[in-house]
Amino acid sequence: MNPIIGITMGDPAGVGPEVVIKALTDPTLPNTFSPVVIGNHKSLMKTAKILGVDIKLDRFRRFEEIGFSKHAVSVLDTCVSPLYYEMGKTNQSCGEHSFMYVTEAVQLCMKKQVAAMVTAPICKESWHMAGHVFDGHTGLLAHLTKTDTGRMMFATELFHVILVTTHLPLKNVSSQLSISTILQTVELGDRELKVLGIKNPRIAVCGLNPHAGEGGIFGTEDIDCIVPAIQQAQYSGIDASGPYSADTIFLRAFKGEFDLVVAQYHDQGLIPVKLLAFDSAVNITIGLPITRTSVDHGTAFDIAGKGIANHKNMLSAIEYACRLCNR
Amino acid sequence: MNPIIGITMGDPAGVGPEVVIKALTDPTLPNTFSPVVIGNHKSLMKTAKILGVDIKLDRFRRFEEIGFSKHAVSVLDTCVSPLYYEMGKTNQSCGEHSFMYVTEAVQLCMKKQVAAMVTAPICKESWHMAGHVFDGHTGLLAHLTKTDTGRMMFATELFHVILVTTHLPLKNVSSQLSISTILQTVELGDRELKVLGIKNPRIAVCGLNPHAGEGGIFGTEDIDCIVPAIQQAQYSGIDASGPYSADTIFLRAFKGEFDLVVAQYHDQGLIPVKLLAFDSAVNITIGLPITRTSVDHGTAFDIAGKGIANHKNMLSAIEYACRLCNR
Repeated sequence: MNPIIGITMGDPAGVGPEVVIKALTDPTLPNTFSPVVIGNHKSLMKTAKILGVDIKLDRFRRFEEIGFSKHAVSVLDTCVSPLYYEMGKTNQSCGEHSFMYVTEAVQLCMKKQVAAMVTAPICKESWHMAGHVFDGHTGLLAHLTKTDTGRMMFATELFHVILVTTHLPLKNVSSQLSISTILQTVELGDRELKVLGIKNPRIAVCGLNPHAGEGGIFGTEDIDCIVPAIQQAQYSGIDASGPYSADTIFLRAFKGEFDLVVAQYHDQGLIPVKLLAFDSAVNITIGLPITRTSVDHGTAFDIAGKGIANHKNMLSAIEYACRLCNR
Repeated sequence: MNPIIGITMGDPAGVGPEVVIKALTDPTLPNTFSPVVIGNHKSLMKTAKILGVDIKLDRFRRFEEIGFSKHAVSVLDTCVSPLYYEMGKTNQSCGEHSFMYVTEAVQLCMKKQVAAMVTAPICKESWHMAGHVFDGHTGLLAHLTKTDTGRMMFATELFHVILVTTHLPLKNVSSQLSISTILQTVELGDRELKVLGIKNPRIAVCGLNPHAGEGGIFGTEDIDCIVPAIQQAQYSGIDASGPYSADTIFLRAFKGEFDLVVAQYHDQGLIPVKLLAFDSAVNITIGLPITRTSVDHGTAFDIAGKGIANHKNMLSAIEYACRLCNR
């Protein structure tokens, strides 16, 4: 039997429902998995109607009741609280519901009822309005799986990027960096790429400061934290090098010199990923006991509900999850 | 008579001499200016010999003695202190000399003896070894011209990027941002692009934090400093907008939606510039009473003296300076 993959619908007021419906009706969707959408059945039905696509959506209240059929997509919709919202707006009830979808998907993964989960974008502000103060999927997943080693990794066709820190104010990045967090990131990335079949991943580690600190003139974290972390990784046989000036290393990776770039903070990794692979970059959370991929875009409230969202990134995220399940 | 452009040789131990010689002997070099290289005559002669290029280099001790000839390049070499160095190494005497080249070029600009200056890369560590504690060209130029409004701008063929802050530790960026420094940067960029012939420049301002702070969840500078600066710019008639999430805005600028992107810190602006226009991006210092362009690469000590440095960026910097002189 094909592996079952849980796909969370994301924030109802964002582009999540649309990219999910479009991806599931895309003729290039892999047929090596069975999908379960975890979300609001009504929102999905409404979206399918707006898009004018031919898709049968069967609603189930409990996972155990799902009968997988080739002719319909199963929707797990367990929420009993009402869901009122306006497209493109932050909203407490959307925050509550989209939070539940992720929580349920994680539980299904933990119980091995699904092989992997793929997430559509949520709105962190709405989560916060609903009282769920997490930095996004990554933080929630770490919490639910009781793992503090989760890291965001991005897969493009040519190379991977992994982040040491993710969703925090830029001014706090420096204090969050330590030899151990950097080393752990290098090790997690190395292990993941080996699982994916790259025998001896070539890993480039970014500096934190301009020109990787230029010998300590523009900050000392590069010397104090990053250099020792690289040395320790090398000592344990990992092909890591750096710290490299972040403004030149991504082009070298893009040209094939490295398999993985370790970025110290969100925009350092995301700016190049989105420039080089806007539609196709897949966000993978690694270092967790479950398998999860995600789109690397947000709720795009400005275009939500208009039927013009591009679903290629969701398609890539599903394809990548299939690849991970079948490895 | 053609405008005279002073070209500083940069650090003798880096790729500066090589890219200068290569650019000046490139058949596509504009013929609308007269060059004066400010640097070490011996280093340049040696470089020309290594490269096997046919160039006549006339040495002058004082600017007033220079006789411009079509058949030779004038080299202003005023240093009397000895210059001993090994290629590819930091060195106090290289720091001293390369510092002098820039100082002389600025003086020639200030006295209007040259119309513009173009700089080859220096090594900040060597400057510091020689006791010149500047953050690089930008800081020195601000000091020598007694201007605190200097900003780094980068010109690519498709759009421009200007930096609010430049060479400082990443953790200090937040405290250096204020409504006035951001507003000043927007205004300087707007003015410069108008001078270049863009009637009403469309300006995108980056957020500082991940997802531009996501409504304050990931830091408040976006709301506290960047939003008010944009509003004030708009109030004075500038077509500025944002703050935008830095990981998506550069693609939009690249696709033609904006003429100028305002980046809050070094790598935020330089990562996309170098990915999108590695060889051709020109570094322009604006907000100064003089005209200066520069390569956007460093001394590249790892390949210095090997004859394999790419000079296209120096050529672009010279071309851009010609364009600015003849505007």
